[in-house]
Amino acid sequence: MNYFNNVSGVKYEGPDSNNPLAFKYYNPEEMINGRKMENLLRFAVSYWHTFTAEGTDPFGNGTMIRSYDRFSGMDLAKARVEASFEFYEKLNVPFFCFHDADISPEGDSLSETFKNLDEITAMIKEYMKSSKTKLLWNTANMFSHPRWLHGAATAPNADVFAYAAAKVKKGLEIGKELGAENYVFWGGREGYETLLNTNMKLELDNLARFFHMAIDYAKEIGFDAQFLIEPKPKEPTKHQYDFDVATSLSFLQSYGLKDYFKFNIEANHATLAGHTFEHELHTARINGMLGSVDANQGDTLLGWDTDEFPTDIYSTALAMVEILKNDGLGTGGLNFDAKVRRGSFDPEDLFYAHIAGMDTFAVGAKVAQRLIEDKVLDNFIADRYSSYTEGIGLEIVEGKADFRKLEKHALQLEKIENKSGRQEQLKAVLNKYILEAHASVKA
Amino acid sequence: MNYFNNVSGVKYEGPDSNNPLAFKYYNPEEMINGRKMENLLRFAVSYWHTFTAEGTDPFGNGTMIRSYDRFSGMDLAKARVEASFEFYEKLNVPFFCFHDADISPEGDSLSETFKNLDEITAMIKEYMKSSKTKLLWNTANMFSHPRWLHGAATAPNADVFAYAAAKVKKGLEIGKELGAENYVFWGGREGYETLLNTNMKLELDNLARFFHMAIDYAKEIGFDAQFLIEPKPKEPTKHQYDFDVATSLSFLQSYGLKDYFKFNIEANHATLAGHTFEHELHTARINGMLGSVDANQGDTLLGWDTDEFPTDIYSTALAMVEILKNDGLGTGGLNFDAKVRRGSFDPEDLFYAHIAGMDTFAVGAKVAQRLIEDKVLDNFIADRYSSYTEGIGLEIVEGKADFRKLEKHALQLEKIENKSGRQEQLKAVLNKYILEAHASVKA
Amino acid sequence: MNYFNNVSGVKYEGPDSNNPLAFKYYNPEEMINGRKMENLLRFAVSYWHTFTAEGTDPFGNGTMIRSYDRFSGMDLAKARVEASFEFYEKLNVPFFCFHDADISPEGDSLSETFKNLDEITAMIKEYMKSSKTKLLWNTANMFSHPRWLHGAATAPNADVFAYAAAKVKKGLEIGKELGAENYVFWGGREGYETLLNTNMKLELDNLARFFHMAIDYAKEIGFDAQFLIEPKPKEPTKHQYDFDVATSLSFLQSYGLKDYFKFNIEANHATLAGHTFEHELHTARINGMLGSVDANQGDTLLGWDTDEFPTDIYSTALAMVEILKNDGLGTGGLNFDAKVRRGSFDPEDLFYAHIAGMDTFAVGAKVAQRLIEDKVLDNFIADRYSSYTEGIGLEIVEGKADFRKLEKHALQLEKIENKSGRQEQLKAVLNKYILEAHASVKA
Amino acid sequence: MNYFNNVSGVKYEGPDSNNPLAFKYYNPEEMINGRKMENLLRFAVSYWHTFTAEGTDPFGNGTMIRSYDRFSGMDLAKARVEASFEFYEKLNVPFFCFHDADISPEGDSLSETFKNLDEITAMIKEYMKSSKTKLLWNTANMFSHPRWLHGAATAPNADVFAYAAAKVKKGLEIGKELGAENYVFWGGREGYETLLNTNMKLELDNLARFFHMAIDYAKEIGFDAQFLIEPKPKEPTKHQYDFDVATSLSFLQSYGLKDYFKFNIEANHATLAGHTFEHELHTARINGMLGSVDANQGDTLLGWDTDEFPTDIYSTALAMVEILKNDGLGTGGLNFDAKVRRGSFDPEDLFYAHIAGMDTFAVGAKVAQRLIEDKVLDNFIADRYSSYTEGIGLEIVEGKADFRKLEKHALQLEKIENKSGRQEQLKAVLNKYILEAHASVKA
Repeated sequence: MNYFNNVSGVKYEGPDSNNPLAFKYYNPEEMINGRKMENLLRFAVSYWHTFTAEGTDPFGNGTMIRSYDRFSGMDLAKARVEASFEFYEKLNVPFFCFHDADISPEGDSLSETFKNLDEITAMIKEYMKSSKTKLLWNTANMFSHPRWLHGAATAPNADVFAYAAAKVKKGLEIGKELGAENYVFWGGREGYETLLNTNMKLELDNLARFFHMAIDYAKEIGFDAQFLIEPKPKEPTKHQYDFDVATSLSFLQSYGLKDYFKFNIEANHATLAGHTFEHELHTARINGMLGSVDANQGDTLLGWDTDEFPTDIYSTALAMVEILKNDGLGTGGLNFDAKVRRGSFDPEDLFYAHIAGMDTFAVGAKVAQRLIEDKVLDNFIADRYSSYTEGIGLEIVEGKADFRKLEKHALQLEKIENKSGRQEQLKAVLNKYILEAHASVKA
Repeated sequence: MNYFNNVSGVKYEGPDSNNPLAFKYYNPEEMINGRKMENLLRFAVSYWHTFTAEGTDPFGNGTMIRSYDRFSGMDLAKARVEASFEFYEKLNVPFFCFHDADISPEGDSLSETFKNLDEITAMIKEYMKSSKTKLLWNTANMFSHPRWLHGAATAPNADVFAYAAAKVKKGLEIGKELGAENYVFWGGREGYETLLNTNMKLELDNLARFFHMAIDYAKEIGFDAQFLIEPKPKEPTKHQYDFDVATSLSFLQSYGLKDYFKFNIEANHATLAGHTFEHELHTARINGMLGSVDANQGDTLLGWDTDEFPTDIYSTALAMVEILKNDGLGTGGLNFDAKVRRGSFDPEDLFYAHIAGMDTFAVGAKVAQRLIEDKVLDNFIADRYSSYTEGIGLEIVEGKADFRKLEKHALQLEKIENKSGRQEQLKAVLNKYILEAHASVKA
Repeated sequence: MNYFNNVSGVKYEGPDSNNPLAFKYYNPEEMINGRKMENLLRFAVSYWHTFTAEGTDPFGNGTMIRSYDRFSGMDLAKARVEASFEFYEKLNVPFFCFHDADISPEGDSLSETFKNLDEITAMIKEYMKSSKTKLLWNTANMFSHPRWLHGAATAPNADVFAYAAAKVKKGLEIGKELGAENYVFWGGREGYETLLNTNMKLELDNLARFFHMAIDYAKEIGFDAQFLIEPKPKEPTKHQYDFDVATSLSFLQSYGLKDYFKFNIEANHATLAGHTFEHELHTARINGMLGSVDANQGDTLLGWDTDEFPTDIYSTALAMVEILKNDGLGTGGLNFDAKVRRGSFDPEDLFYAHIAGMDTFAVGAKVAQRLIEDKVLDNFIADRYSSYTEGIGLEIVEGKADFRKLEKHALQLEKIENKSGRQEQLKAVLNKYILEAHASVKA
Repeated sequence: MNYFNNVSGVKYEGPDSNNPLAFKYYNPEEMINGRKMENLLRFAVSYWHTFTAEGTDPFGNGTMIRSYDRFSGMDLAKARVEASFEFYEKLNVPFFCFHDADISPEGDSLSETFKNLDEITAMIKEYMKSSKTKLLWNTANMFSHPRWLHGAATAPNADVFAYAAAKVKKGLEIGKELGAENYVFWGGREGYETLLNTNMKLELDNLARFFHMAIDYAKEIGFDAQFLIEPKPKEPTKHQYDFDVATSLSFLQSYGLKDYFKFNIEANHATLAGHTFEHELHTARINGMLGSVDANQGDTLLGWDTDEFPTDIYSTALAMVEILKNDGLGTGGLNFDAKVRRGSFDPEDLFYAHIAGMDTFAVGAKVAQRLIEDKVLDNFIADRYSSYTEGIGLEIVEGKADFRKLEKHALQLEKIENKSGRQEQLKAVLNKYILEAHASVKA
């Protein structure tokens, strides 16, 4: 089969290439901080947006033109698997990600759903044998079917909780079968619509119980993937429990779960929560919880999850600073949880979009590398906080100061001298590094 | 002196009174759930908005007409104390709150600032002897003076940290001297403008060190007030570390501080963080951290902190549900962190505004009381989650279920029956209770 | 057939009724300002939300339980017509509204689509003969089908423009056939996703051409319904041309269309554009353009169109002030462009929701009536602007002043005396009127 | 005097310069589309942010270190004039802008205020003789003093209206005296806080009367500067009448004022209104109303007017596309209505910030020039809309089609073929052009 026959394999053709279907900045072999770009960035294709989604929006039906849409049911599922591996190969991408519901259709019963899943899992496993592309993570879709309308692990209905447990159990088994490096929990319906009808405390307790059971079962079957929580503040719910990194961290701390999870951070979820992407990455990083990334971007003038392909170099550069300072993402990667616009319905648009995203992160990585190598920000920050490396500042940091001693110090101060924060200059420096990225590629 | 001579003492005149300078719903003697309304609501006047602020905004100078404005320096400070106790008495309000900088002017040196503070503190103490009005909480202003421009306990400058320590030390001493029931920490400058120049980890570590020192010193001097953190997401900073209840909780958990603090929750800060007021109260309550309330309201179509007097009955009713379920606010209260609009510059407007706020919370309390007594929401919720009181649900809650058992349960389910969440009906019920509040007062 | 057999006819049972399936405040026979409430409010049921929609959201499939869902195709369309008239009768509602696509399925060709429409239109016409419920307005759905993905009258594809013209031509004919009192234009796809690929000027020119053709054709066939434009700022598009009332007014003025249109104002669209509902109503009213209302409410903490049933009495009271000052809505009405929450999937929820909305507007109408009768706001405003009724103010208003004369006046002013705007007092007054609404019903 | 003695004159040193106090991209002599960059961009310094403002924010006092702050009253005003011309010369900037209140202090009476203004105006005129820097525009501050608390031309107080008239009369005279090329109207207080106390219709009528008087007076004194309205949606008011370009256009159309005004468009005001900067520029341009620009940027995650210096190349590139397509800004220019952050308090920060802004617009201009020269977007758009250049599309555009003809066309269509909008590809192209800007400078 050939589902993308308009597109031959995509290669790096350098920054000046006029071929829109070629990488300009992403060169998998290029070294960044001693690592091949491919191994640093660990890009993944999202199965749902790329192969399953049809281009619907709240006011419109599907628009996507996909050659495998002539099939249906399990035939469609199988055609999508074929198409997906053709796509991975042409894009030369090292990872993919999926929800169970993306890869195979729900059956008339849970048993049948599992049977379908098993069949497609076996097929994927077979394809993976001859492919370089691996499974970054899988997860269970517990938000689309009507049964989840009030939540999954936080549902007011114990049968739903049990059903969710069965789905995640299966997901862990599939993850193990396919060698997934992580397992993701996104609680799209784990939240509330209105407090008027909600027992939040019981819901949170149940969510913690669910996570503990998942940990136990993974251990039992020897599935040692990293567990990831993906924060999102809202949409589809009015309020989602994993609002942002800090909120989710608080939950994990309260329920003794902190050691078992890291975060899968999505750019668009960050901005919906009122944070920059880099803020969420930074918060996770300094807490030792930066696990993986859902690489996309939102539109801050719109209030919903637009899941656009990342094309903002400012954002990818600052994200890559965090990732490089984290010494990479470990078992995590950069998963394009991004969809082509509803009006970009051609199969080629899938390539344009992924290339745009990969190039934008590649540029970001180069900018970040040089910012870090040149210690542009690090030196400024070290100097800015230098008062904590000596005298009263050092005593504070070393725990040798108390309010009496500090008051005495403050009372004898003649004047307090602050230093300018130089935000405008630092932003100009960032621009300089971005604009010079192109030249660095050419050299 | 008589600074508010247009206004005689404000009394409860019932819901039909046409006197705009009389309470219509707030009756301090009326019983709510076995407690006098006065003792349940524990209203406080904010010294800063009511006596110190002048009606400036980012584009305009002060507009407020205050008879004590003919004074300046310490004379002004003293006139304000006189005016404040006249105001408390006329409004018949049991509490007030202040920042150090509200009550006395900063001197040329920290010593002089402390001397000024001591003089005014003594004067306030004297006035309190013959007044029923007590100090709900005090705090230190560590955001107005230029020295705080990069933060206080999170400043990049150790001298500033020391200065902040001296201020809070003094604040704790003043709190003890005046019998404050709580001490508040609002970190208006404890955050960042840009990550480009920020060492967030060091700043957070220092903030924790600062809090531990404050705990130690309060213990040392025998000041047993409840410590309160007041979350706010932003403004004046781009990002404030105490973003919301969950974020602050996470911080307290990470640094071993959880047992020493509760939250002072402000309605307008909640909405700036993307939450409803009741969400923040609820989150604090179920974590045992609901300490006190900054009673105001914002304008959700505006993106800044408008600090309006609370007049939305929906909001106060749902807030009072949380407060009643918390069995009141303990040592906390309802502090009007609210300012009359810049165009409401007459002294009478201060009364109109406080009366509006107190009446609105009084109505909210009555609505909440009846909702709870009639178990309108509680019964609905109990029924909604009843599946967790028996069978597989009970096993989940009691920790007797695991993924294998739950999968087995799920596989044998014929069909999952969910129940409608009835949001529209519940909102109509809330309207019914609000509209009946008037009648209940009359009866 | 009986599609809503759990519900008998809904009647007014007064404010204390404990029957949740009864009106408490909406009494169609009650007089408001010399008009029966039924004739003032002119409530309409939205066919799409109530009979066609299935409860999907961007992350989930349909959840609604509807007994006619056992049918499909034209059978389903016919069952929905039957169900709709049963619903109108039980709710005792005077109007309904629909898009062409709501009432009958799209065919394999435009001809077939028209044939389907004709058949269902005839059926509806038959049902209307024995029903009191009339057609408030109809419209053409030009946003759901993939053909509209880049717009309809503003599409970059002339074939799409032509197709849109054919659809609206048919819509005008159906409106005439069924006696519609208005015809609505909502340009859900008339906007852009990105300026990078957009010729905005041509799109706006074409939109104006389209409207002129619609006016001509309505005139030609003698269809004298009021044309209505429904502003919305965004969603589904990034930017919609009919952003808000002022933007749409500017468009109509630029293209000589102002005399042919009024506005259909939706509460949730107002808040998405950063305005209050009453602001949009007021702006339309003082321009003589207030035509009709899509009665719903949004959640200002969420950034998308939630289309909730209106339950906020503040909002309905202030809306009804505008509507009463407009002497009602003329041929317009209050159409519930509102959907039960996805979790409110029972047929009963449709009744709960409509009753909640109708009661909330009924209360709002009573509050507004008393505010206007008592001249509470009008007297305050008249006094506030009284300086324009004499002296230099009158000269300004009468066009007798110029800059020289005004400068002379200003130079001799000793002092400028402004009056307090009394916002806090006015909000307390509004609360008083709301809380007394219940008593006024009982009396 | 030498107020900026740490800074020698700022020159273009090319993109690789490591001197942070040198231009890297702004080269006034470089040609863009046949015009010197200096003559295309027409940068202006804002007197208020750069010389008058002190670094206050709603929670903090001034922080700025300025050597002229040792003066006060008229001496301060004069020192600022000296400093300003030193700054213009060192920055080599061709324009400046001011409000009356920026350049001289308000007196005890209007006469004294005018006297102060006259004295400083004369001094500025003298300095201008030996300076290349000209006055882009001036305006009257009608928002800071308490007298404007309810508005100026829309005040409920006719005395205030008269006072505003006197101020603008003086402003027009000063503009003429100093050769201002434009005169700006920003209605910071021309709006409302609450509709409860507002007569919007009278306020709008009065605003229109005011504008007509201003037009008459400018004509009378032979001041032929371009009049500019600066839209802003809110802040300081809850709702400002000049909400955005479309709203202001509607107002101008309604009152016969359209021919006398163009728009001064501010980036941060655009985003506060929910629009992109380029959207507002585009809307003004296609209506022939693009007059001038307030060049700054906001933070879309914050809800207030941050007035940051523009450093986002995406934004300046897309803005410059609009400006180049407008054949420049005519008598308008790019005024930095931008302030250094409160923490950037050194005099050097003023240079860093302006250099950052000027370089960012210079890069934007280069990117825009190449995008236009290469017809990258224009060709795509021309192709996208090509169906309107022939057949039925041409008939539509030429006014030869009607609904009957279009329906006939639609009925015979076999299938509608839409083309992909290619948003992702176009965004990648924009990135390519931005990243290549650096190389183009080097060459």
